[in-house]
Amino acid sequence: MPETHARRRQALRDLLRRADLDAVLVTDLLNIRYLTGFTGSQAALVVHAADEPGAERATAFSTDGRYRTQSAEQVPDLERFIERPSELVLAEHLAQHPARYRRTGFESGHVTVDGLDVIAAAAPGIELVRAPGLVEELRLIKDAAEVDALRMACAAADRALADLIEHGGLRPGRTELEVARELEARMREHGAAGPSFETIVAAGAHSAIPHHRPTSAVLAAGDFVKMDFGALVDGYHSDMTRTVVLGSPADWQREIYELVRTAQAAGREAVRPGADVREVDGAARKVIEDAGCGERFPHGLGHGVGLEIHEAPALSQRGDGTIREGMVVTVEPGVYVPERGGVRIEDTLAVRESTPELLTLTTKELVAV
Amino acid sequence: MPETHARRRQALRDLLRRADLDAVLVTDLLNIRYLTGFTGSQAALVVHAADEPGAERATAFSTDGRYRTQSAEQVPDLERFIERPSELVLAEHLAQHPARYRRTGFESGHVTVDGLDVIAAAAPGIELVRAPGLVEELRLIKDAAEVDALRMACAAADRALADLIEHGGLRPGRTELEVARELEARMREHGAAGPSFETIVAAGAHSAIPHHRPTSAVLAAGDFVKMDFGALVDGYHSDMTRTVVLGSPADWQREIYELVRTAQAAGREAVRPGADVREVDGAARKVIEDAGCGERFPHGLGHGVGLEIHEAPALSQRGDGTIREGMVVTVEPGVYVPERGGVRIEDTLAVRESTPELLTLTTKELVAV
Repeated sequence: MPETHARRRQALRDLLRRADLDAVLVTDLLNIRYLTGFTGSQAALVVHAADEPGAERATAFSTDGRYRTQSAEQVPDLERFIERPSELVLAEHLAQHPARYRRTGFESGHVTVDGLDVIAAAAPGIELVRAPGLVEELRLIKDAAEVDALRMACAAADRALADLIEHGGLRPGRTELEVARELEARMREHGAAGPSFETIVAAGAHSAIPHHRPTSAVLAAGDFVKMDFGALVDGYHSDMTRTVVLGSPADWQREIYELVRTAQAAGREAVRPGADVREVDGAARKVIEDAGCGERFPHGLGHGVGLEIHEAPALSQRGDGTIREGMVVTVEPGVYVPERGGVRIEDTLAVRESTPELLTLTTKELVAV
Repeated sequence: MPETHARRRQALRDLLRRADLDAVLVTDLLNIRYLTGFTGSQAALVVHAADEPGAERATAFSTDGRYRTQSAEQVPDLERFIERPSELVLAEHLAQHPARYRRTGFESGHVTVDGLDVIAAAAPGIELVRAPGLVEELRLIKDAAEVDALRMACAAADRALADLIEHGGLRPGRTELEVARELEARMREHGAAGPSFETIVAAGAHSAIPHHRPTSAVLAAGDFVKMDFGALVDGYHSDMTRTVVLGSPADWQREIYELVRTAQAAGREAVRPGADVREVDGAARKVIEDAGCGERFPHGLGHGVGLEIHEAPALSQRGDGTIREGMVVTVEPGVYVPERGGVRIEDTLAVRESTPELLTLTTKELVAV
């Protein structure tokens, strides 16, 4: 999909012109992947503001010999330097064309203090300007190719959970670790390169720990089993939590579950273009607070997700910003009763003009297995 | 093992005094783990040069609410701040005690340009001094606890490969991906938290690609099967490559294999305290060059391994430095014949006064399965 990447570079050029930059030196590998499709582990990219789509002459890419073949396939449309370290190679390239690259931005939220010295020493005559978060600003709004990848990642997780339950994988006697490994293996069967983060499986009292790591603890009848997991597909991360009960739910379990389910629905409802991120968090939080459980929901409501498992925007009371159409975010309230058990329900969803599009499709009814 | 971490902090203090620093602000999470045992995803640490082991008063740690319980268990011996972002919290702490922390180093190879601004703004009155690589210097020499973890990680990989072969997992008709997944599952059975990097399984002509990613290509009789993989145990990475033949080796396969085996032995032999890293690379490289295959060995001989899969020192012609007792490095020459097949043999070994200690123990004889 070289057109997709060319389109993203073109969108970046608008931001460069607005910042009065001739070019930007991109060194964050995820940003490079976003702008070029390159998936290797060492690269740099300079994007020139004045280049034309289909004829990019001052936009150049660098990687090293390990990726000669791969970069020719993945980045066929840009000038390529095959030499390391790539940011140094491109800095020297800038210095050879001082008029063309006079004011060049760098990713000041990514380049280290020592790294900037190296770049500056290699690029005398170039004014290196702090340019934090330019590509991240583009990445806030997912394009069609990104939503496709996220949809596949979410589907792999949905299917893995369905398979797990259908094949009796959730039953008393199994360990949290066994369930986690099976979920991961089944996501791979459904196209995932791997889990998108460390799978959480938390049974019984462990479900009251928001970020429990699975152990050899054994699942028992009557337990809540909270599973927070996701799949990695084409570099994109899905993120979903479901909490089920082994056997017949007790009244207290039904109550908490219903509370979290109502809060989660309120949170999803609030995810609309123009909403402040604190408002969205507040919509779900109010449901839980009104039930007198505010202090049992000790984390934010959700976060953006894409090439990183956690990216902007943060949907929380400490967050800042406005929901925009095309963002992909999670909504994941939880209520945790120490020593007893907890429930979290999480979806990944794409912001649309009216109701958001659910990318994770597993039921949110209380499932008793 | 709080004593282990206290000992490492004490060793860091020697480096601080040598650099005329009152303290250092550590923000790299691996360095924090090394110095405290903390394994969470958000933290900062300030180590004061004048503190005494067992009574560290000016050395302080910060993380956030998610890790309140975990940090109390993992870092019981230091003052703890539970608030985020941690580096900001500690910067403010420094500013409250300007006399005590007058000259404080920061990890300039890790802190970003924007990140330094945030720290500096929060710590007026503190002279922030570039202090790159202090903890990394300590991490070059592995202590007993680290070698134990590396030994377990190497053993998990050794056992996984032995199980794979014993249970007939290497046979014509299986795919590279199936073999890779089985190796990873078997490493987990032997105590690994997961693979230490993306497992490489490369069959037939694919074995000629140094960093091939496993595909659905099917293993066939007569193939070289090159497997480069490792286990992650307690945060430490093992790294091993073995190349086997499916069925009876052809003459050309025996020849290449023998050449790489001889080069690998020469490389291991050269790993001695005092040797220049280029010399070590050269010892193995000469064997391959003398056989007229120099250009078929297009990568460095090896690298340090520990909390990262690739760390200093680099054993290569571009490397720089001297081998020291207690380093743990890989030795991994390869010869790759395009379109036909390649062999790489890699061990992880600990540098000792005389012969290095092999941590990966799988045979290096040519195995025909």
